Amino acid sequence: MTQVSSQRNPAETKPGRTRGTKGTTTSSERGRKPVSAAHSVPTPTVDVAALGEQLLGKWADVRRQARALAAKPELHKIEGQTHTEHRQRTFEQLNFLVENNAVHRAFPASLGGNDDHGGNIAGFEELVTADPSLQIKAGVQWGLFGSAVMHLGTAEHHKKWLPGIMNMDIPGCFAMTETGHGSDVASIATTATYHPDTEEFVLHTPFRAAWKDYIGNAAIDGLGAVVFAQLVTRDVNHGVHAFYVDLRDPQTKEFMPGIGGEDDGVKGGLNGIDNGRLHFSHVRIPRTDLLDRYGSVAADGTYDSPIASPGRRFFTMLGTLVQGRVSLDGAAVAAAKISLKAAIQYSTERRQFNASSAIEEEVLLDYQRHQRRLFTRLATTYAASFAHEKLLTKFDDVFSGAHDTDADRQDLETLAAAFKPLSTWHALDTLQECREACGGAGFLIENRFASLRADLDVYVTFEGDNTVLLQLVAKRLLADYAKEFRGVDVGVLARYVVGQAAGAAVHRTGLRQVAQFVADTGSVQKAALALRDEDGQRALLTDRVQTMVADVGGALRGVNKMSKEQGAALFNQHQNELIDAARAHAELLQWEAFTEALPAVADDGTRQVLTWLRDLFGLSLIEKNLSWYLMNGRLSMQRARTVGDYINRLLVRIRPHALDLVDAFGYSPEHVRSAVATGAEKMRQDEAHEYFRSMRARGDAPIDEKVLLARKAAAATGK
Amino acid sequence: MTQVSSQRNPAETKPGRTRGTKGTTTSSERGRKPVSAAHSVPTPTVDVAALGEQLLGKWADVRRQARALAAKPELHKIEGQTHTEHRQRTFEQLNFLVENNAVHRAFPASLGGNDDHGGNIAGFEELVTADPSLQIKAGVQWGLFGSAVMHLGTAEHHKKWLPGIMNMDIPGCFAMTETGHGSDVASIATTATYHPDTEEFVLHTPFRAAWKDYIGNAAIDGLGAVVFAQLVTRDVNHGVHAFYVDLRDPQTKEFMPGIGGEDDGVKGGLNGIDNGRLHFSHVRIPRTDLLDRYGSVAADGTYDSPIASPGRRFFTMLGTLVQGRVSLDGAAVAAAKISLKAAIQYSTERRQFNASSAIEEEVLLDYQRHQRRLFTRLATTYAASFAHEKLLTKFDDVFSGAHDTDADRQDLETLAAAFKPLSTWHALDTLQECREACGGAGFLIENRFASLRADLDVYVTFEGDNTVLLQLVAKRLLADYAKEFRGVDVGVLARYVVGQAAGAAVHRTGLRQVAQFVADTGSVQKAALALRDEDGQRALLTDRVQTMVADVGGALRGVNKMSKEQGAALFNQHQNELIDAARAHAELLQWEAFTEALPAVADDGTRQVLTWLRDLFGLSLIEKNLSWYLMNGRLSMQRARTVGDYINRLLVRIRPHALDLVDAFGYSPEHVRSAVATGAEKMRQDEAHEYFRSMRARGDAPIDEKVLLARKAAAATGK
Repeated sequence: MTQVSSQRNPAETKPGRTRGTKGTTTSSERGRKPVSAAHSVPTPTVDVAALGEQLLGKWADVRRQARALAAKPELHKIEGQTHTEHRQRTFEQLNFLVENNAVHRAFPASLGGNDDHGGNIAGFEELVTADPSLQIKAGVQWGLFGSAVMHLGTAEHHKKWLPGIMNMDIPGCFAMTETGHGSDVASIATTATYHPDTEEFVLHTPFRAAWKDYIGNAAIDGLGAVVFAQLVTRDVNHGVHAFYVDLRDPQTKEFMPGIGGEDDGVKGGLNGIDNGRLHFSHVRIPRTDLLDRYGSVAADGTYDSPIASPGRRFFTMLGTLVQGRVSLDGAAVAAAKISLKAAIQYSTERRQFNASSAIEEEVLLDYQRHQRRLFTRLATTYAASFAHEKLLTKFDDVFSGAHDTDADRQDLETLAAAFKPLSTWHALDTLQECREACGGAGFLIENRFASLRADLDVYVTFEGDNTVLLQLVAKRLLADYAKEFRGVDVGVLARYVVGQAAGAAVHRTGLRQVAQFVADTGSVQKAALALRDEDGQRALLTDRVQTMVADVGGALRGVNKMSKEQGAALFNQHQNELIDAARAHAELLQWEAFTEALPAVADDGTRQVLTWLRDLFGLSLIEKNLSWYLMNGRLSMQRARTVGDYINRLLVRIRPHALDLVDAFGYSPEHVRSAVATGAEKMRQDEAHEYFRSMRARGDAPIDEKVLLARKAAAATGK
Repeated sequence: MTQVSSQRNPAETKPGRTRGTKGTTTSSERGRKPVSAAHSVPTPTVDVAALGEQLLGKWADVRRQARALAAKPELHKIEGQTHTEHRQRTFEQLNFLVENNAVHRAFPASLGGNDDHGGNIAGFEELVTADPSLQIKAGVQWGLFGSAVMHLGTAEHHKKWLPGIMNMDIPGCFAMTETGHGSDVASIATTATYHPDTEEFVLHTPFRAAWKDYIGNAAIDGLGAVVFAQLVTRDVNHGVHAFYVDLRDPQTKEFMPGIGGEDDGVKGGLNGIDNGRLHFSHVRIPRTDLLDRYGSVAADGTYDSPIASPGRRFFTMLGTLVQGRVSLDGAAVAAAKISLKAAIQYSTERRQFNASSAIEEEVLLDYQRHQRRLFTRLATTYAASFAHEKLLTKFDDVFSGAHDTDADRQDLETLAAAFKPLSTWHALDTLQECREACGGAGFLIENRFASLRADLDVYVTFEGDNTVLLQLVAKRLLADYAKEFRGVDVGVLARYVVGQAAGAAVHRTGLRQVAQFVADTGSVQKAALALRDEDGQRALLTDRVQTMVADVGGALRGVNKMSKEQGAALFNQHQNELIDAARAHAELLQWEAFTEALPAVADDGTRQVLTWLRDLFGLSLIEKNLSWYLMNGRLSMQRARTVGDYINRLLVRIRPHALDLVDAFGYSPEHVRSAVATGAEKMRQDEAHEYFRSMRARGDAPIDEKVLLARKAAAATGK
């Protein structure tokens, strides 16, 4: 067998295997340790099965079940449907989920559920590979509408509505958002005013901006709704509460009297969901249809709540929303995974431009830029995946009641608000980069990047706008910071931190990130010497968060003593920094989750490769914020200049393992469903290669004019 | 009139007018100079009409005509259509364009055209506001198919086919790209082998990878095609040539014998175009159907070309492709403009969260982060717009023959390869940021962001993949660099440059950017003292390009003496830097185009505001690459730390003029067609405001529970 044909035989070499032409010394193969011919140094291999199992995490069984379901063609998105057809199909798919017992895990065992909150989210987020519309419509029905009845209602409500919600007899809406107020739920203007004479609430939309908007199931399917409104009784507004409302007549599907609405029409994606608008004109609902777990009204109009503080009550009622954020975080990671699987597999087969050889073109994944584009995102996807597992565990702890203190709930809120923005933006970025990395083919719907990207687009603004969520994180960071240093002049402290004085010991806060900065900064100079090491990366990433928070904290000193307007203006002057600090915090948490996952890897080779990938993630974060490290004296010019080179060397090390790393995600062709990831490109390349090879062998290839001219020129000069 | 109502009256204040609460001292109004009440310092105003005229540029009249056409509902995209319906509509729209004399400007006057190449592109790119599918399908028909016949064919060909192409009797294809080779046209595998016995070429597709792919008009509409194939005669392959081929029977619309194809199906966008695949099985075409301007075959099979070098001949024939890149650059800028118009107008009306006042929420555009998100992109859009005008002028100079040397053509190619990637990526980024800045509303198709983004997605990889184009720019930079310093040891030179030695004078190259570095570096230290000034920005931006090129040039020293494989490996190790250098070069050219446009602004106020915007563009570039300036000793830590603050101050200065700056783009509601930009939000806000105002006036607003609790607490403590 000639050298050329051995390079091209797909049966003998796995697609991801490189031939060592691009600085990689050898390649990885499943099942045995390959040895570099040149140096006889064994390179690590990845135990794909074991890594896959680790990635499946605590709810591996649920994920496997959900993936088996998501592999069924009945649940797959049909591309090119009109939004009307797509809506119909998605509606029917919800019934299919019911029939397959796929969506009741979180509901009470007494009603046929499993009381399994973490498992419910794990299963739910896997649906994204079938069709994001299906995932989100299921989320509207059971995660929002049903969940609101379950968490905000009481036993009577559960008995009355949950069975119908669970079995789809009552498709319904979660009617919270209004046209005039997106993420600012406290400001909604719909009112529910109690009338003791009839023992009814009158639900009313006072003006156009108070229409409910973007409400899933509102345009067509919703028969019921949980409607959020300002509860007014005895001339006191007790804030936002949830009311169960019959929306449409189950027979005629017409709106009930006093209720109207509009179709939101075609959207940028998720067109399997019938989003719409709703408005209420003096609609009378029975007193008992207030979901009154956290606030009730007696027949005479007396308001009562187990939570005295209106602010705390509001946040408790909205607390169920966190599961939406948790599941979007997981779904975004899943979408990034299948997208990278498709793009990386294609890049190991596709050849383009013959820079290094006249006979054969380069495999795309051997190009440095291509590696940068895909491997940095692969590393982030791993980080986001491990981070999501931690978030989901935290969520399950809280919702199962295992660890359900106020502090736990606040930590959960903060974690979700930190991870959901990063992972949803990352999914869009990854889908787009994969689509571009596949060129024109990436734009064809048969390869799904564009379709998934369109569907996931809204993930970055719904269930909490990403920019708003990061500000919640920032406020928590500032609050922890202030709490830790109560009585200390924060301005002085900020300067102290910036000056990198070491030695002072400070206790850690609950989230343990914010206040360790003084304790840690002593290691920063060492870190500069070893930014490739775990401790070095940790110190640099942690230091940045802490310093940024301390800087803003210092700048905001005295904001509480100012007028509301002055305070807001001062805050606004630092809004950009605040959001950057929150992002840095979230990235640190992702890096920590990745790092904590490493000791759990049993196989040495796998752990080595994952450590490179973690290093790539950490170094990419440091590279992205290199100017900060330089401006603040954390890295020297000389040290900073090594970051890019080191990243390039990591890319070369990771290259032979890239396909293993995406295969470990464990998605089958039924989930990926991307024409470029079917091996078709490899077959085409082989066919073309064989055509040229046999033509050369027969000696009947036409001679290239350039070659002819070169020969003539050589002959003319007698050479 | 109370203070509150005067703040809310839309009839008296223009929507963009701020009330000075966010650090702006006053606001801008058309037609008069407002004076700050506090300081009596006049702030500049923008002469929207004059600025609009300047932006329309050299082909203002053509643009006005094209915009009038693009305003017609007949040409507008209908959202939610299936791709089949959309294709049909777009096809009919092409006939509408013919009837309205909109697309023949570039064709010869003898055939009813205008020989107006710049005007043709100007008019063509304006169509993007009606429907990008329309723009691109028109581009396929006249800009690629027709243009290939015109530029690569000779008089006989023109007479035979151009009339039918111009009037849509012959819808046709530009069949160049193959499945197996995207941007690497030289490697296409379709062959056209000459047979002197029958005086025919035999067109043949040897294997699946050689199918033509992504070809507009191929799936349904194409009756004719210009097919690119390797021309083989007398056993010599003379490289890629273009052949006119009858594709389908004009009556039956069936493929001609030997021709087959496939539909590319639904795509991520541009679904008004029927992209498809084509393959040829020994299809015989007459010798005279070779478009033989740059290469002909005599009856006996003798090949002849006016261009002796096969390489130069290839690039000459592909030279017509540059007009596609030029027009995509312009269309991308137009899309960014209408998107910013919509998002910025909405942000001046939309209110969210009441941080500074209990009564009224903040206008979105008063938030610092929101300003960052939108104004930095506004600045880039202005830069890209002025840069496009320069590119279009260069294009017209070359294609009109006014300045048509080899050097001119090369400069044009380089400029187009530099600007098209930046503007098309910028358009996607801007559309996405605008969509997110409008929250959930941004995701509704009625606001068009998602629709335009989907359609423009492929602009970043077609007509030359952006990453590939930037590498062409990089190679040109390296070539100019090497040419300038022929005989000089580039390694020494690179160190010399990095060391910032001043004094040595070097002549400038044609593009005048690369080789001025030694001459300019003397001003870098001054620049560090004045990075807010034009000269400081210029020095910093220029220095970076030159140093990066010199660095890579130094690293690649000796590459010509290496084996092909070694050389390719060395290049690949620096691929990322090379692409970054090309991008930096393109950004510098954009900055220069913006800066050169400033003296042409007659009105002082307008020039002042535009200068701020140019500064924002320049400083944003410097901020983005701040780590480079720090690592390379171009900026001190102290100086670098001022960049972010200065950008924040520029945002505040630009804030009152934001609406003027987008209005100057000159697009009417018929072009913008975004529900959020209709003033509807303002009406809703006013209605809500009036509702609460009158409720307070009547004294029948319910009291807030929080207020009640606070009163009770105060009463209990006796305060």
